[in-house]
Amino acid sequence: MTCCRPAVRELSAEQAEAHAAVLKALADPMRLRLLSHLAAQDCAAVCSCDLVDRLGISQPTVSHHMKRLVDAGLVTREKRGRWAHYTVVPEAFAPLREVLSFG
Amino acid sequence: MTCCRPAVRELSAEQAEAHAAVLKALADPMRLRLLSHLAAQDCAAVCSCDLVDRLGISQPTVSHHMKRLVDAGLVTREKRGRWAHYTVVPEAFAPLREVLSFG
Repeated sequence: MTCCRPAVRELSAEQAEAHAAVLKALADPMRLRLLSHLAAQDCAAVCSCDLVDRLGISQPTVSHHMKRLVDAGLVTREKRGRWAHYTVVPEAFAPLREVLSFG
Repeated sequence: MTCCRPAVRELSAEQAEAHAAVLKALADPMRLRLLSHLAAQDCAAVCSCDLVDRLGISQPTVSHHMKRLVDAGLVTREKRGRWAHYTVVPEAFAPLREVLSFG
């Protein structure tokens, strides 16, 4: 049997609020797919035009989901000409993995 | 600069749906606090009566949140006498940490 790590500490109400907000941004199938596509590009910035093509969704839908990820601090956005380019923020995921270290 | 792991693979639509469903169950401050309390007990089953006392919430509220966690496969429930007892399923968290291995 796998057991819980002995070092798990209880979350404070404030910590739980902060982590839940980021997890809410992640808890959507399309946002997970957008993130995994960005992550698979080895940290390179990805044009929103490529996300439209790749995932077969409209530009407004891409913008809506990417705004949620940017607001949660999981992705950065940079405007280049007429297109937004997005990059994963790898450091933002370590605290989440730590919170989910129940196993 | 921390870079994305080169081995990150894109999620399929089906994988993204499955992970998003579990993340939705987690994306709530009270459920994160309930889970972290359970995890801090070193895998021991915790009586729902203790959760009421510990987190200062009502029995129906505990039951509602714990049902979401049980349905997501993150916790198991066992009835002992009049009280439900809950135990974390550590194995259920490894796939989530893997999905969040963007950093």
